[in-house]
Amino acid sequence: MRIHIVAPITTPGLSGISDFAPYANPETSLTHDILDSGPASLESRFDEALAVPDLLRKFIVAREEGADAAVIDCMTDPGMGAAREATGMLVLGAAQTSIMVASLLAHDFSIVTTSAAVVPVLADLVTVYGLSDKLRSIRSVEVPVLDLHDEERLRTALFAQSLAAVRDDGAHAVVFGCTGMRGWADAIREHLAAEGYPGIPVIDPAPTTLKIAEALSELGLAPSQRSYPAPTRRTAVGYEDLALSEAR
Amino acid sequence: MRIHIVAPITTPGLSGISDFAPYANPETSLTHDILDSGPASLESRFDEALAVPDLLRKFIVAREEGADAAVIDCMTDPGMGAAREATGMLVLGAAQTSIMVASLLAHDFSIVTTSAAVVPVLADLVTVYGLSDKLRSIRSVEVPVLDLHDEERLRTALFAQSLAAVRDDGAHAVVFGCTGMRGWADAIREHLAAEGYPGIPVIDPAPTTLKIAEALSELGLAPSQRSYPAPTRRTAVGYEDLALSEAR
Amino acid sequence: MRIHIVAPITTPGLSGISDFAPYANPETSLTHDILDSGPASLESRFDEALAVPDLLRKFIVAREEGADAAVIDCMTDPGMGAAREATGMLVLGAAQTSIMVASLLAHDFSIVTTSAAVVPVLADLVTVYGLSDKLRSIRSVEVPVLDLHDEERLRTALFAQSLAAVRDDGAHAVVFGCTGMRGWADAIREHLAAEGYPGIPVIDPAPTTLKIAEALSELGLAPSQRSYPAPTRRTAVGYEDLALSEAR
Amino acid sequence: MRIHIVAPITTPGLSGISDFAPYANPETSLTHDILDSGPASLESRFDEALAVPDLLRKFIVAREEGADAAVIDCMTDPGMGAAREATGMLVLGAAQTSIMVASLLAHDFSIVTTSAAVVPVLADLVTVYGLSDKLRSIRSVEVPVLDLHDEERLRTALFAQSLAAVRDDGAHAVVFGCTGMRGWADAIREHLAAEGYPGIPVIDPAPTTLKIAEALSELGLAPSQRSYPAPTRRTAVGYEDLALSEAR
Amino acid sequence: MRIHIVAPITTPGLSGISDFAPYANPETSLTHDILDSGPASLESRFDEALAVPDLLRKFIVAREEGADAAVIDCMTDPGMGAAREATGMLVLGAAQTSIMVASLLAHDFSIVTTSAAVVPVLADLVTVYGLSDKLRSIRSVEVPVLDLHDEERLRTALFAQSLAAVRDDGAHAVVFGCTGMRGWADAIREHLAAEGYPGIPVIDPAPTTLKIAEALSELGLAPSQRSYPAPTRRTAVGYEDLALSEAR
Amino acid sequence: MRIHIVAPITTPGLSGISDFAPYANPETSLTHDILDSGPASLESRFDEALAVPDLLRKFIVAREEGADAAVIDCMTDPGMGAAREATGMLVLGAAQTSIMVASLLAHDFSIVTTSAAVVPVLADLVTVYGLSDKLRSIRSVEVPVLDLHDEERLRTALFAQSLAAVRDDGAHAVVFGCTGMRGWADAIREHLAAEGYPGIPVIDPAPTTLKIAEALSELGLAPSQRSYPAPTRRTAVGYEDLALSEAR
Repeated sequence: MRIHIVAPITTPGLSGISDFAPYANPETSLTHDILDSGPASLESRFDEALAVPDLLRKFIVAREEGADAAVIDCMTDPGMGAAREATGMLVLGAAQTSIMVASLLAHDFSIVTTSAAVVPVLADLVTVYGLSDKLRSIRSVEVPVLDLHDEERLRTALFAQSLAAVRDDGAHAVVFGCTGMRGWADAIREHLAAEGYPGIPVIDPAPTTLKIAEALSELGLAPSQRSYPAPTRRTAVGYEDLALSEAR
Repeated sequence: MRIHIVAPITTPGLSGISDFAPYANPETSLTHDILDSGPASLESRFDEALAVPDLLRKFIVAREEGADAAVIDCMTDPGMGAAREATGMLVLGAAQTSIMVASLLAHDFSIVTTSAAVVPVLADLVTVYGLSDKLRSIRSVEVPVLDLHDEERLRTALFAQSLAAVRDDGAHAVVFGCTGMRGWADAIREHLAAEGYPGIPVIDPAPTTLKIAEALSELGLAPSQRSYPAPTRRTAVGYEDLALSEAR
Repeated sequence: MRIHIVAPITTPGLSGISDFAPYANPETSLTHDILDSGPASLESRFDEALAVPDLLRKFIVAREEGADAAVIDCMTDPGMGAAREATGMLVLGAAQTSIMVASLLAHDFSIVTTSAAVVPVLADLVTVYGLSDKLRSIRSVEVPVLDLHDEERLRTALFAQSLAAVRDDGAHAVVFGCTGMRGWADAIREHLAAEGYPGIPVIDPAPTTLKIAEALSELGLAPSQRSYPAPTRRTAVGYEDLALSEAR
Repeated sequence: MRIHIVAPITTPGLSGISDFAPYANPETSLTHDILDSGPASLESRFDEALAVPDLLRKFIVAREEGADAAVIDCMTDPGMGAAREATGMLVLGAAQTSIMVASLLAHDFSIVTTSAAVVPVLADLVTVYGLSDKLRSIRSVEVPVLDLHDEERLRTALFAQSLAAVRDDGAHAVVFGCTGMRGWADAIREHLAAEGYPGIPVIDPAPTTLKIAEALSELGLAPSQRSYPAPTRRTAVGYEDLALSEAR
Repeated sequence: MRIHIVAPITTPGLSGISDFAPYANPETSLTHDILDSGPASLESRFDEALAVPDLLRKFIVAREEGADAAVIDCMTDPGMGAAREATGMLVLGAAQTSIMVASLLAHDFSIVTTSAAVVPVLADLVTVYGLSDKLRSIRSVEVPVLDLHDEERLRTALFAQSLAAVRDDGAHAVVFGCTGMRGWADAIREHLAAEGYPGIPVIDPAPTTLKIAEALSELGLAPSQRSYPAPTRRTAVGYEDLALSEAR
Repeated sequence: MRIHIVAPITTPGLSGISDFAPYANPETSLTHDILDSGPASLESRFDEALAVPDLLRKFIVAREEGADAAVIDCMTDPGMGAAREATGMLVLGAAQTSIMVASLLAHDFSIVTTSAAVVPVLADLVTVYGLSDKLRSIRSVEVPVLDLHDEERLRTALFAQSLAAVRDDGAHAVVFGCTGMRGWADAIREHLAAEGYPGIPVIDPAPTTLKIAEALSELGLAPSQRSYPAPTRRTAVGYEDLALSEAR
């Protein structure tokens, strides 16, 4: 099985295959890419709009080259529907997958994301995915994506907002609202336990999405073609390099 | 007051200023454009993804040139959130505006659109806009957008699906699910009356959106900056011509 | 086009044509009235019950005299459904219209009204209108309607509750919960901006409802007769002066 | 315990104390009235608007004369909120009480009412009462209230619509949508059983509401004064005879 | 009429017929039981699972001995659906009945229960019963069921949490989240009034459920057999003493 | 990793390890059991009540013996919450897991189950799991669980109901409503494609739940202890063999 991961940003070093490889099954072959054109990071609907065309290109090529499934390494699931239409492939977004997993494990959940700007975007996604009754709150750490490498700043803010989500908003699980927060789940879980809230699942979206992609792919499942039909139009003016093959 | 209308497609002749001018207030100055790059028509999420970058470019330029408000002449509201972020301007989408108007006039409504492929897209929009409790059904005429000029075919299908929405699904109002269906509201209303359902509002999205844009613009209203904050990042790799000005 | 506005109260001076005229289109002819019988102001369901018969009388007469549309100058939309049934005319209530406009502009909204007594009444209206998922909170300034002329008291309370709605409840827009609060939108918006929340739409219900009435009326739209059918019974014992004409 | 029942109509003979007495507890004292002014029957929002003032008068007087609780013998619950505000008394509406009872007994329910005109009115009530997820459908027999005495016509239509609600809409219980349908519950239940649907609860709203009024009254329960506060204004111009006493 | 009450616990003295007799109608014959096998008290889903088999046995026997209706004296409604299936009898759970009564009396309500452990259990019940839009909050006093006899501890905690539900969460009514809190309704109501919240209904689940059971039983109502069909299988391995009679 | 599967029935041969082994990862160690005491099959809430105690016993023992995760091989998820409380282990139910997977792949889904008797049970589960907005319909094949081995009967009924779910109810995916229907997914998908509905995901609950259990277990995820706290009471009268160890 081959899974292609794309981080819909142009900045190198924020997402890499090494973030996923430790979680993959031995039989899984991973490939990974970032964008050639698009935003440095994805923190607004404007960023998202400019990330999607090249993201689609990456997925169309990967499918032609034999990918079985794909993961969008971003918590606003940019282009997920279009990519499913364009490739017919199992394309999973980190947001949809993570909140489904949180709902499997807990009565309800909160999301802790990077900035207030994406809160309404995430809220709308949760609504579209049908799980708004399970959403307690969306909080933000107010750390720009390109500053997430500042460990001390991120730890302090993640600890504070995760604890507030659990203590003040009553959340039974926490979902990171940015895949760039990867690696912090254990620390948050321990912090919450130390503060009197043991056993709170903390969902790290990137590895979670990979594992669900493996599971569904092994089951032979793909997106509904009724929900995501193959486009009748195969390309667009100015996007001739992005034309859909006859295969789909 | 100046309102800029963009049809997010590249095919000339499907949408023009003459579709809107008869409805405009005398004080309103209208401008209109279609896309330079993008899909021939918008009938999938894939089409939508490739329409949005140039649509944003059109709105950013219009704002710089003094537009007060903007109308997206399409029923999937492509790029609406991104355009509000990028320009701060009152940008109205035909879908959101039309279903709000339908909800003002009737207990509930059905949408009659072009093809089954966009039904889940429209259903998700209604959900995000908060009005799913008011939605009776979404039906499709199965006429491709580029064939909407075939009057006889469209009339037959529109009559049949609108009647089914009212008679079988119980709708109290009908909303056209494609702005390309413009001009058919009176005929449908009369057909429904002749079939025993008088006084059913039939919402023609394009003029409806224009009139609400005028009304809100005259009230000095603009989108919430909390919902649609100005992007902190002003451009993206490969989209340098689309950079946001300092003004926003 | 002629629009008839009625404030469903008997106290002169609280609502007048001059509150609306500055917002009207040049082509719009406005008429305005208050009640001959009914409550001094409308602050309970009891008040509302006693306001509706004379309000209906006013609208029936206005329709007979040629009105094209009507506005109920009150945020509980008293008699709106009955007036639509009785006249077939485009009758808009300030509550329904204002929250639809707020939903067009923002991810969600709060209402700031006069007293706690009307909070459940407004909450039920929002639910019936289908927008409860967009409602963040309803707050009250605890200023009786007949004291709204006390500018200092009102300003202080409106500032405090609007800020609390935005800061504590997270609202993306604010809707006044009483048409008698007219004229305060700009001040509140500036206050919110000064407190760190720029670009929050503040909806002043009375002018907003007038502008939407103009827009829908120019589009030739009227309420659904399936939702608001003409009553089969034309009058009632003790209300002979309120008999419906043959015309409807 | 004394319970006052009012049918909010002026036509004698449609509702009487004998409709309720067989169901009352031995300790319950029943009184009953119809309106002096108002509609002949209640089949529109227009009818409802003209029924409420005299209905309030009846309840206010009954309270002053010692009534402990009150029943509105009508399925649109006219004036229920206002009557609770005006009297502080346990005032139950047939609609709210009946659908709550249906929800206690069955997974979901349908309502079978008199005419299509009241379908949206009832739908809105179910929504306000919070039980729309339990509502399968609302059907109508298209028999005017004043013709409900035509047994054969009513039986045929009630049988047909109740069966359709259960067989086609999947309802697990049936609620009559007009208190004037009283007495038909056993016949409908037997008809449904004969058609292959045994054990479907059929709720007859008038006696059901009486029994719940007795139960809640014996428990000493009254409406929440936070939901239905005593009006600060005690009367209205033209309704001086309807002034609220100091007692409330 | 004979009503059988079972407290699904094995500890004697926590629930007795004397808790119900003062509320019963003179014509009602009450019987009461606790479990022979099961948990000492019911404070988790684990407890609930082990309470249900013997609870069913009690109800099956009671039905065979002529009971007309049954009350589950517990706020998680353990075994309610199974008991309705097994006996066809009117079996009411304290949770469903109490929240329906609260919804009849108030715009919304909060539940005050014993411990945080049952909060998600109660939240799920409210959701299944269709009333989640009416639920403001669920709070807990953190007093184990077997300590509820400690009056001072319970009073202090009940006062604090009920007041917080009303003042901080905005509840219009309070429902006890454990039938073991019986007898405290008047004290809480007076405490809330003293704190500035007069007229807040406080629902004591045990007597409330009894009275509604009487009312529905007198109306001849029973659970829908479509919702709760008689089991086709009459017993289970290891539960031969619990076999269903031919009668059902 | 060791996953313990229990089918909550006493009939041998309906569920076995060979149903799961072909889907397991090479690293996964599977164990499997049925009940010693409980119903022959699980087709009512009554059956469910009598299955749960022994099911809990099986899971508690499995946990003590080192199981990492558990699967309930049944579509009503009997005892799932209690088992999570009692063991702290990742216990997945087939219903919750399957509908989450369906929601990941399609806009909405229908369930096709064995008999009408379990339809309201499944409907309530979907509601509790928060996905009722995604549920199109629940249909039944009316084949008792113990007759599911009758291939021809099952094929005919499954084909008919699956097609009706897609064609008449508009479902975008189909979920089997009984784990005993295992093995039919490919045939149904092909049948739907042949009837004009290609690419409809058909979810086979048993293998799907196993694969998600593997994925979540490899991620180190367990149920929220806030949603499913360890019971404070460790056993119950008559269930001494089922006492919880000190370890949890």
